[in-house]
Amino acid sequence: MYTYIHDEIVPAEKAFLHVRDLSIQRGYGVFDFLKTQDGYPLFLIDYLTRFYNSADIMHMSVPRRPEEVISIIHQLIKKNNLADSGIKMILTGGYSEDGYQPGKPNLIITQHPLTLPSEDQIRKGVKIITHDHVRDLPAVKTINYSTGIWLIDKIKESNAYDVLYHQKSIVSEFPRCNFFIVKKDNTVVTPADYVLYGITRKNVLTLAAHKHKVEEGIITIEDIYNAKEAFLTSTTKRIVPIVQINNTYINDGEPGTVTFSLLRDLMALEAKEIAHQKSSYN
Amino acid sequence: MYTYIHDEIVPAEKAFLHVRDLSIQRGYGVFDFLKTQDGYPLFLIDYLTRFYNSADIMHMSVPRRPEEVISIIHQLIKKNNLADSGIKMILTGGYSEDGYQPGKPNLIITQHPLTLPSEDQIRKGVKIITHDHVRDLPAVKTINYSTGIWLIDKIKESNAYDVLYHQKSIVSEFPRCNFFIVKKDNTVVTPADYVLYGITRKNVLTLAAHKHKVEEGIITIEDIYNAKEAFLTSTTKRIVPIVQINNTYINDGEPGTVTFSLLRDLMALEAKEIAHQKSSYN
Repeated sequence: MYTYIHDEIVPAEKAFLHVRDLSIQRGYGVFDFLKTQDGYPLFLIDYLTRFYNSADIMHMSVPRRPEEVISIIHQLIKKNNLADSGIKMILTGGYSEDGYQPGKPNLIITQHPLTLPSEDQIRKGVKIITHDHVRDLPAVKTINYSTGIWLIDKIKESNAYDVLYHQKSIVSEFPRCNFFIVKKDNTVVTPADYVLYGITRKNVLTLAAHKHKVEEGIITIEDIYNAKEAFLTSTTKRIVPIVQINNTYINDGEPGTVTFSLLRDLMALEAKEIAHQKSSYN
Repeated sequence: MYTYIHDEIVPAEKAFLHVRDLSIQRGYGVFDFLKTQDGYPLFLIDYLTRFYNSADIMHMSVPRRPEEVISIIHQLIKKNNLADSGIKMILTGGYSEDGYQPGKPNLIITQHPLTLPSEDQIRKGVKIITHDHVRDLPAVKTINYSTGIWLIDKIKESNAYDVLYHQKSIVSEFPRCNFFIVKKDNTVVTPADYVLYGITRKNVLTLAAHKHKVEEGIITIEDIYNAKEAFLTSTTKRIVPIVQINNTYINDGEPGTVTFSLLRDLMALEAKEIAHQKSSYN
């Protein structure tokens, strides 16, 4: 496998940062993550736009123009020869003189095999737990996952799949996924605030609007207990049905038809995007 | 200069981590920072205890016993030959297989020259600004300084020295310092909650108690406006008088006598600790 770092593509095992880097010193950096299918990157412009926007908000400048990053990503896809993969762009605070002031940002682009949810998890749905927390600067995809990683043990102990953040019972997001419910009247709702605006979240909202009423609004834990269906979305996981929150089953404890229908629509959208890229390249 | 990393002491310019490290991937790590004077580490056991405690809370294990870390620090002090310096211990989440699950933690120990506050800043006092924020897991010295570093530009634009965090006007701490006020009746007060429990904070509380009433309690921004004196404490900065908060001068806008008296007492305590170490080593 190959990685882009320090302005060149090198074997992945040679991708190092000096410990003066502000990611190591102070956890300062942003990133983004997209996937490839059949060797083509999905919704690349959406992810790139968010990546540059995150950098901008954190007062960092990506040292390469978007066209150059696109070219690097295509070179990595060719060299690494992984059909289905995850591609991660990280922009760190750079080599700091005093361990606090940012330096010239370091841009790293890596590619990896994907770990997808299992068929069983999609077919049966998953359990989630809740935790009172709001991320710093939630609309920015910073590298700060202290609380998320700190909660890994609690998730395991609870036999849960993931942890949903809330503030005084108003829910927001998972560490790495967005959250949706389907109300009894089939309205599809996702939290409007204190979330990272996921690309899959955006695509699901668009797809759902073809068939249902959709809302970006407020969801309380009580609303989840009263929901017909619930699911999470992410780039890697697409859509995973949620059937239990803490010790309470949602509705009958089975994944719902709206959830599965949206998953089919999302996979069709991805296939359409790949087909479009294939025809453009040929 | 030399750095301890990957179980050995190497020239500082050769201290690298692979980009799979969870500090780079997810900002996951803890650290601690102490200083040396005349070649002796000050209050080393206090800092070590906090470092191991931070690691423990974050579900990480320091790969070396405290006695071994003490020995490494003394080796670094000898090799680097810096009389007055800062020593930083960083423990990262380690090399992660999937960019999220922690690996075996990486321990890094570095030594640097110190940047102290200027004589002018101590003599005249400094201006601070305020920002509504609370750190994640504030009692733990994690490497997450996203908000602090994000605020560097705002501090500069305001011609301020530092930024004091508050939640709905109840103040807590600076990104890297603790906060104190001296009330009109000479009571010395520092916030009890949502703070990192600084070693200098602890020493100042002890010293102040010899001469004044001391309190760990709640301080509001209004309380600061009504204070007689205010100051910040940190390992590097010791005690720096604060004479202005946002656009309001505190009392007469001059540093106060209690502040300076505590600074003299703190420097005497440091000198006593160094003298004690010198006599123990000889």
